[in-house]
Amino acid sequence: MSRDSIESVSRLKEQLQKLPGVGPRGAERMAFYILREPRPFAAALAQTLLDVKDKVKNCSVCSNLTEDDPCSICTDDARDRAEIWVVEQPRDLLAIEASGLVRGVYHVLMGHIAPLEHVAPEDLTIDALVARVRAGGVREIILALNPTLDGDGTALHIQGLLSGMDVRVTRPARGLAVGTQLEYATPGMIEAAIRDRRPV
Amino acid sequence: MSRDSIESVSRLKEQLQKLPGVGPRGAERMAFYILREPRPFAAALAQTLLDVKDKVKNCSVCSNLTEDDPCSICTDDARDRAEIWVVEQPRDLLAIEASGLVRGVYHVLMGHIAPLEHVAPEDLTIDALVARVRAGGVREIILALNPTLDGDGTALHIQGLLSGMDVRVTRPARGLAVGTQLEYATPGMIEAAIRDRRPV
Repeated sequence: MSRDSIESVSRLKEQLQKLPGVGPRGAERMAFYILREPRPFAAALAQTLLDVKDKVKNCSVCSNLTEDDPCSICTDDARDRAEIWVVEQPRDLLAIEASGLVRGVYHVLMGHIAPLEHVAPEDLTIDALVARVRAGGVREIILALNPTLDGDGTALHIQGLLSGMDVRVTRPARGLAVGTQLEYATPGMIEAAIRDRRPV
Repeated sequence: MSRDSIESVSRLKEQLQKLPGVGPRGAERMAFYILREPRPFAAALAQTLLDVKDKVKNCSVCSNLTEDDPCSICTDDARDRAEIWVVEQPRDLLAIEASGLVRGVYHVLMGHIAPLEHVAPEDLTIDALVARVRAGGVREIILALNPTLDGDGTALHIQGLLSGMDVRVTRPARGLAVGTQLEYATPGMIEAAIRDRRPV
């Protein structure tokens, strides 16, 4: 066997390397792990890969990933549907949900506006968000987008669309990252912390 | 959707986390990547997982992983079959092959002797190695095991078995890792470098 002569193993390494965070060495370690484990491990993983592609879709209300439509958050009667948390990606929703602080529902944009990457407002679920607000009963929209140039630009665009409507638009606070030290804070963190300062 | 309510996605994350070097965050990023990619990506990976388990076996001569038996190294007429490089794992063979310096063939032990982990000599392919030497035509055995306690113990055991036989037993040199600085060398590296010192 030369380095590439086991055709199926080479193919497995190539495919694993397409996953985020997996380099050549990582793919090799994973491939050898899979080779060493009994067949049911690989068979179960293979089946799950097909399952997620076949069963998981976007919720027709909030666009979050779900097996049931609408998703379990949108159909949860304990949730406050007057409070919509707008996020860029399903993984952002997970991060916010993990805090356990949100009683409202979500709206997943499926990205941010990025003209250089040819992502226009109509490529996102912004129209659907505006329609949800227009349908009434929405008290607050929290624009929980990433604190980046693209996130801020997208937030600004949505703010403009909602400006004439009877809804409060907010965003999460920015400032010093809890647990870090001031001397290591970036200029952006410090600027945000100063601008958003509040009485104690 | 709460953090665990998409059953297939949770399952995928759990299974991915069993792979070496994949933590909860890495598994989540991979799962979302797979969800975003078109179905053929997941389907191809699923098929390859089954392929490696169904097609790849151990070479009946050297125990290396292969789709054909004997493997392409054992059947390569350009190889010097009188020179056998003994390694612990198939991935060690790959690392050595990548050097391009080996003209001989290999013998993969499939591990090392480790009493505490209940790995005895008879769990490895040591008997097959001794049989290969006994069959004749072998000039040199290079014990290219890991430079660890377990690797050294396994090498010593094999050395004992081969001691009465007409074969030269060697091991790769140990010493300072090329590209590192002396001041950062571990005591083990320095000791090996001093013991194995050679005229220039």
